[in-house]
Amino acid sequence: MARAVLVPLCLCWALGPAAASAPPNLLLLLMDDMGWGDLGAFGEPSKETPNLDQMASEGMLFLDFYTANPLCSPSRAALLTGRLPVRNGFYTTNAHARNAYTPQDIVGGIPDSELLLPELLKKAGYINKIIGKWHLGHRPQFHPLKHGFDEWFGSPNCHFGPFDNRALPNIPVYRDWEMIGRYYEDFKIDLKTGEANLTQIYLQEALDFISKQQASQQPFFLYWAIDATHAPVYASKQFLGTSQRGLYGDAVREIDDSIGKILKHLQKLGISENTFVFFTSDNGAALISAPKQGGSNGRFLCGKQTTFEGGMREPAIAWWPGHIPAGGVSHQLGNVMDLFTTSLSLAGLEPPSDRQIDGIDLLPAILQGKLIDRPIFYYRGNEMMAVRVGLYKAHYWTWSNSWEEYSKGIDFCPGQNVSGVTTHTQEEHTNLPLLFHLGRDPGEKYPLSFTSDEYQRAMERISATVQQHKATMVPGQPQLNVCDKAVMRYGTICSCRSSFSFLILFCKSQKSSVLSGGTGSVAFSQ
Amino acid sequence: MARAVLVPLCLCWALGPAAASAPPNLLLLLMDDMGWGDLGAFGEPSKETPNLDQMASEGMLFLDFYTANPLCSPSRAALLTGRLPVRNGFYTTNAHARNAYTPQDIVGGIPDSELLLPELLKKAGYINKIIGKWHLGHRPQFHPLKHGFDEWFGSPNCHFGPFDNRALPNIPVYRDWEMIGRYYEDFKIDLKTGEANLTQIYLQEALDFISKQQASQQPFFLYWAIDATHAPVYASKQFLGTSQRGLYGDAVREIDDSIGKILKHLQKLGISENTFVFFTSDNGAALISAPKQGGSNGRFLCGKQTTFEGGMREPAIAWWPGHIPAGGVSHQLGNVMDLFTTSLSLAGLEPPSDRQIDGIDLLPAILQGKLIDRPIFYYRGNEMMAVRVGLYKAHYWTWSNSWEEYSKGIDFCPGQNVSGVTTHTQEEHTNLPLLFHLGRDPGEKYPLSFTSDEYQRAMERISATVQQHKATMVPGQPQLNVCDKAVMRYGTICSCRSSFSFLILFCKSQKSSVLSGGTGSVAFSQ
Repeated sequence: MARAVLVPLCLCWALGPAAASAPPNLLLLLMDDMGWGDLGAFGEPSKETPNLDQMASEGMLFLDFYTANPLCSPSRAALLTGRLPVRNGFYTTNAHARNAYTPQDIVGGIPDSELLLPELLKKAGYINKIIGKWHLGHRPQFHPLKHGFDEWFGSPNCHFGPFDNRALPNIPVYRDWEMIGRYYEDFKIDLKTGEANLTQIYLQEALDFISKQQASQQPFFLYWAIDATHAPVYASKQFLGTSQRGLYGDAVREIDDSIGKILKHLQKLGISENTFVFFTSDNGAALISAPKQGGSNGRFLCGKQTTFEGGMREPAIAWWPGHIPAGGVSHQLGNVMDLFTTSLSLAGLEPPSDRQIDGIDLLPAILQGKLIDRPIFYYRGNEMMAVRVGLYKAHYWTWSNSWEEYSKGIDFCPGQNVSGVTTHTQEEHTNLPLLFHLGRDPGEKYPLSFTSDEYQRAMERISATVQQHKATMVPGQPQLNVCDKAVMRYGTICSCRSSFSFLILFCKSQKSSVLSGGTGSVAFSQ
Repeated sequence: MARAVLVPLCLCWALGPAAASAPPNLLLLLMDDMGWGDLGAFGEPSKETPNLDQMASEGMLFLDFYTANPLCSPSRAALLTGRLPVRNGFYTTNAHARNAYTPQDIVGGIPDSELLLPELLKKAGYINKIIGKWHLGHRPQFHPLKHGFDEWFGSPNCHFGPFDNRALPNIPVYRDWEMIGRYYEDFKIDLKTGEANLTQIYLQEALDFISKQQASQQPFFLYWAIDATHAPVYASKQFLGTSQRGLYGDAVREIDDSIGKILKHLQKLGISENTFVFFTSDNGAALISAPKQGGSNGRFLCGKQTTFEGGMREPAIAWWPGHIPAGGVSHQLGNVMDLFTTSLSLAGLEPPSDRQIDGIDLLPAILQGKLIDRPIFYYRGNEMMAVRVGLYKAHYWTWSNSWEEYSKGIDFCPGQNVSGVTTHTQEEHTNLPLLFHLGRDPGEKYPLSFTSDEYQRAMERISATVQQHKATMVPGQPQLNVCDKAVMRYGTICSCRSSFSFLILFCKSQKSSVLSGGTGSVAFSQ
């Protein structure tokens, strides 16, 4: 495999006062299915996130920050590679415009040819840890410690379950190479009460790692990818019943409390001015699970799985005392893929030059308040559904979910219905895209008139952007194509299984370099 | 007319450090059709209200603050009387559950028997001024200077128009007793560009009045009831085109800028610690006018005219440096009627004891962070549509608007559709109210199961509240009943006209104590 040669650059990140010789620590707080509207700072009416709201008031709030895909796996693959899923392989061509992901019995995962952020950060001396959900594949070759991470505490997948059978065992939990247990067995989740102490465990892991790294004087990259807000939602006993919002709010409150503790820990250790912290989420709130198990996308349209704003616009906060001016608000169009490039920039590294990188360096926006002109592409599986340029968003395809699913009560846009927009068939608008002005109409309710001058002017610019994007697009080998049957029902773990299987099952006493057992297969989620 | 005897109390409002002998000035900033979601502090995605957001960070944000009616006139009548419109007469019995208001050709208005806040404040030595929209009637007996105000600059009505005919002249603008001109003629509003400098005029009026009062050392009550966010929306030239949100956002930005200037003026004069300021709106955003002429109710359901949260929950901020702790957030259920009682309390006055007052004194919530248990009643015209007790809201009637109107494209809930909730016929649920938990489900999308224990428990408490409310309700004489034909089309100024008319028309040179000319009639707005 050809790897780009990475030469550490001058440490030109140090635009703030702390122009020290060592690059800053990097702490990425990635939420799971948390929506744009879930924080007080973003208008959640119960306003129960004092720590995150304070983080925003001490740092910079991003109002126009996006994910690269409205589903967990491809979003995370994009974040760690700085590349759209259609480039890094986290998509399928077996079905049109369907997001694919990595349930435990999938055989696909992150290709070795992809360069992940932690791999690159090693060149600058970083120690890298992932706490929580990996989601880039279950097979041995996809283990996070094979892709640049030095430590791992967490799971290759969501905490679905309990499955409790040999063909589909409960999801394993790992410490580094070792599987140390399974959800529901060794790591309890009470589906009746919603009680689980996992966030506390993940918090302690973070505090311990930060303390250890501070003592070792080596810069760290901590990827805190917790999942309490992903259905089945959970919270520790001390937080159960404490939120106006019910169990989902309990989970948010525990996360908020934990993040407060992590930031205070950095301050107490005296390394807050040398630690760049970024908070965001992997995709929009899962409205199909609302209200008990799903969050809020504020006034945006629809949620997870869709390429409407509710599916892809994320809450985002940058925090770096002494560097980022307190109380800043940015309208920079940002993307989780930018965290790849920005982190490299902070580490004094250049992004790889042998491949297309979609993420941009956000430091000029974060540290100098600049606005960088760049588009946002909204993909669903293998299809570019929409694009945002400035305040305009053009939909080339619209789809919520199928009539078949919708008729069964599965609704990606509950309580919302915009005629001709939240369509239940895949509608192509390639010749005459539906155009929205997201400033006047953040809820995507009022398409601009096709005959207006404004439409013509905006589409000229957008068309040029799309043309260039498509002309230079070289899709990666789809990694989630193993299964030929693309259609699945939402909520089913897997639609079909391939003929091969790896029936090596594990228990706590068995050390193994294989991430889980099960039957190899792949799933598409619509 | 029997008037309650009002004896100034001890000045027990002075719970903060400035326990001076004089009561504080009262400054009420009342917006027109501004929605809960229109400010950055409430999650508006463009976050263009730095002054109001700062006001919130220096004061107290109310997240659960309501109007008494989702339409301008009755809301304002309730605010100034502390009483529900069904008590103070600002309703009609000619039609069921229809809000009535006061277009210029109406004969109804605020009855003399009602005691208005400025009348009462006079007992404590206040000088009272209204700047902007009165909306409590056009006939001479309803003039604000006949109801306790000492000064007036503004209009008896919205800036609808241009009408420009003798039967329905343009809306007049008054300075005190004198009509000094008319909208579109002497006070220009360019409907094509949206340009009008009215907010600047209202701002200057406020600054001048505050300066004058500060010099005179007399406490003041300033009711700043501006209307730039009511369709037709307007802004001054310097603000046109400055907002991401279009013209509506330009208007909001100008208001935000103006409020910043007013607060700075108080600080510059050294009276900010002796001036209690409250910001709120008269009803939810008018979604029928969105996106160009209407605001945002965030994630709440529907808007103006309806008794869903979008119609009645309001943005609200209390500001009183040195008294209200900075950065406070309150979940106190508040209501515009509370501003009546709270203002009296601040002035050291008791509310009238000879009539039912619905407003409560919010000072314990504002100054001591207490939570006062009280219900919120959601009325539409003569019908109690819903009630909120704690986090539960029960709908006894549901209605958005009629099928007839809806089929013509008039939509109070654009892009929203909750089956069985946003009904287009008036649906009675008196025997089995639709129940929502506003913490878990602020968008009123998921009615609780009628058979659940939670439903039974919550409804027991709510039923008792409603029973008491209805048992003790003595409706006032409806003042807006003149017209027998109740049905009107939305957007029409008036549905029918009574037989009498007062065809005295006015011009700038004619001093008069009559508020406007036209044909007497009344309108119902559904």
